[in-house]
Amino acid sequence: MEQRTEGTPVRRGRGRRPADEVRADVLGAAGTLLLRDGMAAFTIERVAQEAGVSKTTIHKWWPSRGTLALDGYFHAVESALAFPDTGDIRADLTAQVRAFVRLLTGTPAGRVIAGLIGQAQTDPDLLTALRRRYSGPRRELAVAAMRRAQDRGQLRADADPRILVDQLWGACYHRLLLPDEPLTEEFADRLVANLLHGVGTG
Amino acid sequence: MEQRTEGTPVRRGRGRRPADEVRADVLGAAGTLLLRDGMAAFTIERVAQEAGVSKTTIHKWWPSRGTLALDGYFHAVESALAFPDTGDIRADLTAQVRAFVRLLTGTPAGRVIAGLIGQAQTDPDLLTALRRRYSGPRRELAVAAMRRAQDRGQLRADADPRILVDQLWGACYHRLLLPDEPLTEEFADRLVANLLHGVGTG
Repeated sequence: MEQRTEGTPVRRGRGRRPADEVRADVLGAAGTLLLRDGMAAFTIERVAQEAGVSKTTIHKWWPSRGTLALDGYFHAVESALAFPDTGDIRADLTAQVRAFVRLLTGTPAGRVIAGLIGQAQTDPDLLTALRRRYSGPRRELAVAAMRRAQDRGQLRADADPRILVDQLWGACYHRLLLPDEPLTEEFADRLVANLLHGVGTG
Repeated sequence: MEQRTEGTPVRRGRGRRPADEVRADVLGAAGTLLLRDGMAAFTIERVAQEAGVSKTTIHKWWPSRGTLALDGYFHAVESALAFPDTGDIRADLTAQVRAFVRLLTGTPAGRVIAGLIGQAQTDPDLLTALRRRYSGPRRELAVAAMRRAQDRGQLRADADPRILVDQLWGACYHRLLLPDEPLTEEFADRLVANLLHGVGTG
């Protein structure tokens, strides 16, 4: 994120800032607010204030508080969830699932995404936004990485990567939403090991 | 559930019915209402009416609508989720996960449990109740079945059954709550096969 101080000419000058820049500022402010103060304190008004834009500008791009929170969340965690590609699928999956667990447990992101998924169960528009802007694209990144591993011969060709997504990241969401057991990096390691090597003896 | 008709002497007689019987009637009515009309139409008043008891009686045992819905749900689905024990862990897991998928997709139970999990993300009391009365006990049943399979030598002794729960049923919850991909019986079969045989080639 670009850092600016109060009164910088680019904000107060007569020319309008490019839309992309304004949008990036709003997303940056939304993500920062969310991860700092959580969903309960998240309002369009506060994002507008932090980003130095009007509420009208925000409403032009985001129809609701939920969709703005979702985009802010996605923007804030994007770098933490980058998918490594070292050519070794076991190492890459382990690193990615570990990073996901650290994000969910070591930052407020876990409560934020749990709250969004929770709210989406009775808010069809939010569920659609969540799928289009978050879970869908995240799923595709993981599937693409696993298809590359299939091309390299590291994963069985008859395995469906879309199902492996549910058995790795879905397993983490299960412990996030129904915390009967702890979400740890050891858990991440074992998810990958179980799935690659199998736990049957037959 | 015991079947009774309006005006049966046991309901209108002078003696009070045993508490266990009243409790079972309330649970039966709650479960029936939930699976027939869903969570939106679920009120303590309607359950009281259907069960032929007072709201006060219900409040004596259930502190909130959420906890009554939870117990009613559990009561209604208990038989559908019975854990088979044929001595063949692959067959038993496949049958159980298939039955779970059918329950989630073929009855209103899927929307009910999704709504309860969703609401629990911002309602700590409901989350505690959900874990104590539903996800905890369900998890223990599955873990016990897998430990028996370990004793029989059908699952690797170093596999942690608690993690396998997340990679089977947790994977189903993932598709229920974030429906990017369909929940099908074929999905259930492949969850079990992936985990037992492994998808790595190394």
